[in-house]
Amino acid sequence: MNVQERLTALRQLMEQQNVAALIVPSTDPHGSEYVAEHWQERQFVSGFTGSAGTAVITRIGGCLWTDSRYFLQAAEQLKPSGLTLQKDGEIGTPTISEWLGETLEQGAIVAVNAAMFAINDLETLRKELADKGLTLDTQHDLIAQVWHNRPALPKTRTYELPEQFTGRSTADKLHFVRAKMANAHVTATLFTALDDIAWLLNVRGADIAYNPVTIAFAAVESDRVVVFIDSDKTDQALTDYFAKNDIQTAPYESVYDYLRALPATTVIGLDTSKVNYALFQAVEHATTVKFASPVFAEKCVKNATELEGFRRAMVKDGIALTRFMMWLEKAVPAGTETELSVIDKLHEFRTEQTNFVTESFGTIAGYADHGAIVHYSSTPESDVPLKPENFLLLDSGAQFYDATTDITRTIPLGPTTDKQKRDYTLVLKGHIALAQARFPYGTRGNQLDILARQFLWQHGLSYGHGTGHGVGHFLGDHEGPQSIRTDNNPTRLEPGMVVSDEPGVYIAGEYGIRHENLVAVRDIETNEFGRFLGFEVLTLFPFDTTALDRALLTADEIAWLNNYHQMVYERLAPGLADNEKAWLRDKTLPL
Amino acid sequence: MNVQERLTALRQLMEQQNVAALIVPSTDPHGSEYVAEHWQERQFVSGFTGSAGTAVITRIGGCLWTDSRYFLQAAEQLKPSGLTLQKDGEIGTPTISEWLGETLEQGAIVAVNAAMFAINDLETLRKELADKGLTLDTQHDLIAQVWHNRPALPKTRTYELPEQFTGRSTADKLHFVRAKMANAHVTATLFTALDDIAWLLNVRGADIAYNPVTIAFAAVESDRVVVFIDSDKTDQALTDYFAKNDIQTAPYESVYDYLRALPATTVIGLDTSKVNYALFQAVEHATTVKFASPVFAEKCVKNATELEGFRRAMVKDGIALTRFMMWLEKAVPAGTETELSVIDKLHEFRTEQTNFVTESFGTIAGYADHGAIVHYSSTPESDVPLKPENFLLLDSGAQFYDATTDITRTIPLGPTTDKQKRDYTLVLKGHIALAQARFPYGTRGNQLDILARQFLWQHGLSYGHGTGHGVGHFLGDHEGPQSIRTDNNPTRLEPGMVVSDEPGVYIAGEYGIRHENLVAVRDIETNEFGRFLGFEVLTLFPFDTTALDRALLTADEIAWLNNYHQMVYERLAPGLADNEKAWLRDKTLPL
Repeated sequence: MNVQERLTALRQLMEQQNVAALIVPSTDPHGSEYVAEHWQERQFVSGFTGSAGTAVITRIGGCLWTDSRYFLQAAEQLKPSGLTLQKDGEIGTPTISEWLGETLEQGAIVAVNAAMFAINDLETLRKELADKGLTLDTQHDLIAQVWHNRPALPKTRTYELPEQFTGRSTADKLHFVRAKMANAHVTATLFTALDDIAWLLNVRGADIAYNPVTIAFAAVESDRVVVFIDSDKTDQALTDYFAKNDIQTAPYESVYDYLRALPATTVIGLDTSKVNYALFQAVEHATTVKFASPVFAEKCVKNATELEGFRRAMVKDGIALTRFMMWLEKAVPAGTETELSVIDKLHEFRTEQTNFVTESFGTIAGYADHGAIVHYSSTPESDVPLKPENFLLLDSGAQFYDATTDITRTIPLGPTTDKQKRDYTLVLKGHIALAQARFPYGTRGNQLDILARQFLWQHGLSYGHGTGHGVGHFLGDHEGPQSIRTDNNPTRLEPGMVVSDEPGVYIAGEYGIRHENLVAVRDIETNEFGRFLGFEVLTLFPFDTTALDRALLTADEIAWLNNYHQMVYERLAPGLADNEKAWLRDKTLPL
Repeated sequence: MNVQERLTALRQLMEQQNVAALIVPSTDPHGSEYVAEHWQERQFVSGFTGSAGTAVITRIGGCLWTDSRYFLQAAEQLKPSGLTLQKDGEIGTPTISEWLGETLEQGAIVAVNAAMFAINDLETLRKELADKGLTLDTQHDLIAQVWHNRPALPKTRTYELPEQFTGRSTADKLHFVRAKMANAHVTATLFTALDDIAWLLNVRGADIAYNPVTIAFAAVESDRVVVFIDSDKTDQALTDYFAKNDIQTAPYESVYDYLRALPATTVIGLDTSKVNYALFQAVEHATTVKFASPVFAEKCVKNATELEGFRRAMVKDGIALTRFMMWLEKAVPAGTETELSVIDKLHEFRTEQTNFVTESFGTIAGYADHGAIVHYSSTPESDVPLKPENFLLLDSGAQFYDATTDITRTIPLGPTTDKQKRDYTLVLKGHIALAQARFPYGTRGNQLDILARQFLWQHGLSYGHGTGHGVGHFLGDHEGPQSIRTDNNPTRLEPGMVVSDEPGVYIAGEYGIRHENLVAVRDIETNEFGRFLGFEVLTLFPFDTTALDRALLTADEIAWLNNYHQMVYERLAPGLADNEKAWLRDKTLPL
């Protein structure tokens, strides 16, 4: 069945069931950023494969909303579907509710799969549609009825991540959660975010690309835990581990029966920004109350063991990158390499490292003008040979049992122009300003954001993405609630939080530059003016210094770079062969 | 009657009327920051004279909430009243509602003067009290019944501020307001903030200290305007001016009758964050809807005429300060001057300037350790002689017909220590970083705030106040909605907005340092990365360079300072005598 046939079948169903429009978002019942094939409903109905976007299907047409990263790709991929592209963020683009209000008749029914919306988002949508005279119906699951041969849910082995990596027992984490529950007079709660569950139960899996999680739900009551998970994924070792922790298991889909059966005496706390609406609807007798996930607010602050894991992972990543770069320096002049071939080669070097599991996201290797496409993904069609000129923007990361890594280096493959040097240096100045920031306890990421942007702005340059995202511990490469962005975010930075520091600049048709390290928030000093925090730089790999315009650097910035490079050498050298040490010594010489 | 007698009379009334507690805030029916004596109810019942604080009186006791600026003063001034000081911002201090919940019996009645609360604030209070089982009564005006010999409302002459100063006719401003009203389907609106009214009607007065406003309300309907103002304040010139603009007048207190009489066909838009609750309660037949004051969002963006007025005012202020500083340099060694005497002298120099009206706030002259008290106000009791050592922190401003000024200079009265030099320089580095910032259109003040703080934070220093406040045009020295603070503020900076740039550092028991200029947001360039804004520095007076640690300054910062000083000299010199020019030339020599 092609997209056109799917839409025809879907519209027949819509007509039979008196549904005027169907909204299809790009998430899953767990609110995941990366989604298993089984749940790629938006892709199924639209043909658009981007990571973000919402389709709206009406009886005779429809639209797809996505952001500027995907305008070109979506325009191309939407052609067979006949859906219209709606450009999010452009002036004049209607919201979904506005468009539906203009398109449908008063009283028309708009259907959704309630499992694909967090409670808050669905309530907002319902209100918006009501303002337009439209009715939201959350009881339909139309796509399930037309999606034959739907891919099964992934069923990878789920395993315990030992305390030597997590630094905190499941018993202790459950004790923490139950204390928060007692405090809020809640007798049960349901965890639905896959990384929350992995952290709480100290388990990992491989159900989702790049995210070492297992698809499950976890209900915590005062005296028991029920994990809703496919039994094919739980081997004897895991069963024993669960039993030791008084954790019961039940079939994945039975979470709905569980919720339905909760007695009226139960007060179940639900995180309305995370738990999907279908789960909320399933509760029949119990009292539901708002209850922010205590795991979400806790797992972002890494404990000492986790931070040690980050430091170990960075050494391994730095060694893999050293070997890769030594190889690349010889391979590029030979003229045989492309974006895709270096992605493969980097993967090879990473797999040599102990406890390596997978990449933490799809490696971005953007050569020359491709580097200016912020979320560029090399495909056989787009792949280009690397020449000994211009920049290769290389953004990659790994999942080790120890921790998650994420690093971007901008590699000059040949001589650089004055303009390239200026831009490369301005981005690095911003990177350094953020890395060496000190700030009072209570400071939010959005207060720091400008440190990374200020030098670009002075030159009339800017970048459209965030400066920093939180990073999980052998979990999601993107993890909240902290961030360093222009947007307001009430989360204050706490010692132990890991965030990226990744300013960039993108010159369309020419090149892209980004410098990214991961850093951990740490205590600096407490004095009569209060408690001051700063960052520990975790990532270990030199920045290319041949592309620097040294005249733009202050003495402070040069000192920072020299200190950083010295640390990189000292930490990586013990794991390197002599020729590798010599290479790294050369790359880390003081300016 | 002393405070104790007043409280006794008040509590008798409370008992007769079955009122358990009375909340008395420090504002007026117009939400003013500075309040006429007539409305100083909180001072009347508590004896506390600070600018911020809320008294709560119960039948047997009560408390006063104020912030850290006033802890010492309030503790002293509250003694005769027997009220307990509640320290706002300290951990463990209850909110007013929490305290009342703990203190009163369930169902008890808490009274307020509804005219002293904005609609939103009163609704919030009502909800908070209801959560504690308490009832809010908004029908009492108990203080009026016990305040005999209450000072009358001020009745200063109200006059037209000609278009040569305002740059925009009242007719045009009314046209603008009516367009916003039509857009929101509102047929009437009521302006209650005194600066909104002054701006809209192009009138000024002298009813409030430092604020050239007249006490009035203004109702705008589709086809008429009614100004509620005491007839003693309107002379023939003003009456003619109003008549020319189809503006009717009515007695000040008749605004309540006006609202009561509005017919059911009227839709009256009220800014619920500004309009007081008593006015809202007065509406009987008309429909009330939320309607943000279009004047509040418009007057903060200064037009070309107003900006020219700022530039003229800054020349006059700079000349007055030049003469003052020349005098001070000789007067301090003579040993006869004090904080209060220099405040008087500065006033004298300002009054020599054309179109000078008044100071824009009470001059702060904080010598040595007094400079470390952020909102220090010299009194005959606190006044100290100035010696040829340490810093004098001098924060002052003027109201000219042309515009409002506000400048802080930190003046070394003798040699400075290394630590003083370091702190003086770190504050100036922050001042300069903010002054020369460039940023994309859409940037909010809270994004820029760290530019002024970053160097202090690097050294474990900080300051507890905002970095910048909006400034009115011959209106309030503090004017919203824009600000440059750590707090989130959704207002984006728009070309034409005037803000202060005033980082500082306060070393308790030693000295205070603050460097403050006013700056105007302006366009810099528009390119493929978007529209970039920056600042035009308005204030014209040199920073002392003898207190600088030049080793801490970058070449960029020295260049900024030299350029600024050159501009100061070029703009001020034409208005100075030869000896004054020579003095200023010396103070503005390039580093």
